[in-house]
Amino acid sequence: MSAFRFELQGTAGAARAGTFHTPHGPVETPAFMPVGTLGTVKGITAAELRDLGASMILANTYHLYLRPGHELVRELGGLHEFMRWPGPILTDSGGFQVFSLSGIREIRDDGVEFQSHIDGSRHLFTPESVMEIQRALGADVVMAFDECPPGGASRAQAEEANERTLRWLERCRARFEALELETPAEGVERPRQSLFPIVQGNVFEDLRQAHARQIRTMGDWDGYGIGGLSVGEAKPDTYRALEVLDGELPRDRPRYLMGVGYPEDLLEAVSRGCDLFDCVAPTRNGRRGSAWTLDQGQVNFKAARYARDRLPLDPGCDCLACTTVDRAYIRHLIVADERLAERLVSIHNLRFLTRLAGTARARVLDGSFPEWARDWLERYRKAGV
Amino acid sequence: MSAFRFELQGTAGAARAGTFHTPHGPVETPAFMPVGTLGTVKGITAAELRDLGASMILANTYHLYLRPGHELVRELGGLHEFMRWPGPILTDSGGFQVFSLSGIREIRDDGVEFQSHIDGSRHLFTPESVMEIQRALGADVVMAFDECPPGGASRAQAEEANERTLRWLERCRARFEALELETPAEGVERPRQSLFPIVQGNVFEDLRQAHARQIRTMGDWDGYGIGGLSVGEAKPDTYRALEVLDGELPRDRPRYLMGVGYPEDLLEAVSRGCDLFDCVAPTRNGRRGSAWTLDQGQVNFKAARYARDRLPLDPGCDCLACTTVDRAYIRHLIVADERLAERLVSIHNLRFLTRLAGTARARVLDGSFPEWARDWLERYRKAGV
Repeated sequence: MSAFRFELQGTAGAARAGTFHTPHGPVETPAFMPVGTLGTVKGITAAELRDLGASMILANTYHLYLRPGHELVRELGGLHEFMRWPGPILTDSGGFQVFSLSGIREIRDDGVEFQSHIDGSRHLFTPESVMEIQRALGADVVMAFDECPPGGASRAQAEEANERTLRWLERCRARFEALELETPAEGVERPRQSLFPIVQGNVFEDLRQAHARQIRTMGDWDGYGIGGLSVGEAKPDTYRALEVLDGELPRDRPRYLMGVGYPEDLLEAVSRGCDLFDCVAPTRNGRRGSAWTLDQGQVNFKAARYARDRLPLDPGCDCLACTTVDRAYIRHLIVADERLAERLVSIHNLRFLTRLAGTARARVLDGSFPEWARDWLERYRKAGV
Repeated sequence: MSAFRFELQGTAGAARAGTFHTPHGPVETPAFMPVGTLGTVKGITAAELRDLGASMILANTYHLYLRPGHELVRELGGLHEFMRWPGPILTDSGGFQVFSLSGIREIRDDGVEFQSHIDGSRHLFTPESVMEIQRALGADVVMAFDECPPGGASRAQAEEANERTLRWLERCRARFEALELETPAEGVERPRQSLFPIVQGNVFEDLRQAHARQIRTMGDWDGYGIGGLSVGEAKPDTYRALEVLDGELPRDRPRYLMGVGYPEDLLEAVSRGCDLFDCVAPTRNGRRGSAWTLDQGQVNFKAARYARDRLPLDPGCDCLACTTVDRAYIRHLIVADERLAERLVSIHNLRFLTRLAGTARARVLDGSFPEWARDWLERYRKAGV
């Protein structure tokens, strides 16, 4: 039996509850994966991630390739050992970063040439090199190298990106399979990895469908990434893309919606059949003092009206921040630019998403998901006004 | 019986082991107090402070007066409640900050006029106002408002500062005692506080002696601050000042050496009869990636030679950093400017000092202090070369 296996345990409409088994343990879905860009979720320890309910985390191939370098990470025992995270890890392919972060870049059929955002040095990512880098990093799930066209791309651009992504997927798989057959160096453990393809197609429903079908024709993958959404398109477009994909992707494989999300986006996507999520918003907002709360929506606690507020950030939350200090204290920390502020708010935001995903799962399993999700979204959106 | 009481439990030469009882619990001495400038030890939670062995912490009157304001802290239940630190707290008088941090300042007999480092606004600290502010903050131990002349001050300057400090101490005590008699506002708990005087005298041994005697003539204090050292003077001068004070200060009262220290300075001062210490170095160095280690002295782990080093920061240390990650990972975090680096190194440095103070205590109690301290200092200094 493969080390990777998805058990579907319940459904409610398109929403699903499952367990994704990996060599580093199970992931109960829906699940939010905190983003550990450089092998660290900003300011948070591995033990804290466990405590706030994270079971799988994400790290960025692009960033780790540049610093400290994937060969060094391999030498140090791989990413799990390097950052002392014993649970499952997913690495992205670096595609999104080289398309969006780097300076001058050139997309060619062999790969993408780009400049480091750190020192401007030139590098080439190819489907093959990205597989090699992710092999060295040693994550459980590795993502195919894809072309992610920008939000607002034309149909022609989207078609071209789909085709290139397919060609690259074939090359990714060939290199991935060859690497699997190689004997690791003395003393290096052979990583057990799974390659997920990425479905592109922008907001064009028929292109999304066609791409999903073409990818399935190529093989029976352990799971599927959904890329190129949440890049500036209108929300109804995102939802429709997910809705058409729900019918195209196999029910017994996990679906990872890349780069999502904000709480309401995560729940809307769960309702449309997505299982795995990642997003930097919890920690990026945390660094700015902005916290998610059920009854007030997204709140920046720097505002003067919180100076005497003795409530926790989000009453009813069980995170480290909400069970120890009050808004008045956090507001003081934010105003004084104290680093404890961003740590506490980041932990709260991460917990907000892991709780949301966990509750969605429980509601799918007990059959009350549709009403609960509707009420939750209504309450959260009303609060945000 | 007073809520404040010092039990002397053992001595070894001038070194002492004791227990300082406060309304918020006992402090086993020698003890290092982490500095929570703005009601937070930079980046570290109260639970982590407990875990790393801190029993008493320090907060800064000057900083809390400016942000969030002492009246607000009182309204929110006082500093213990505000920052959720259940143990003893000491607040300094703000004297050191207004003499060293602020811009234009004017020292007058009634007090010190100074400019806020935040917005340049003008403020006046008097012995009376400083007692009122510290009353509002509600620390267990409050420090008298003193004049701290700069390192390298002349004998005449030191004499003048001693005299002013004495006059101000009288005014501090009068205001402190009057505040103790006031009935607190409805719902506000009456803080139980102790006022410590501060012995000045710069590096002039006879002035140190005379000042200590004059202060003792004024009353039987619960403890004594030793100020104006570690401000740039030569180490032999510091040591001599402590040695003459050992004979002048009562044995059955704790002695707090303000602003010390670095590990070797702390141990040298313990050897000369000091009990309590504070210093921002553990967290300030931590923010720069600089850690204390027994066998290598102070090390900046940013250096390339640590890129593959699988040892903990300090082998043998039991702190969160040393028991979870290695130097290679911390070096990566420092190079990548990741906030987890400063948190881990700060925790290690704080633990380094609490362990050092704790070991010194155990060695005083078991009679092996002199040899142990000599060996420790030799080993640490040799490592630092």
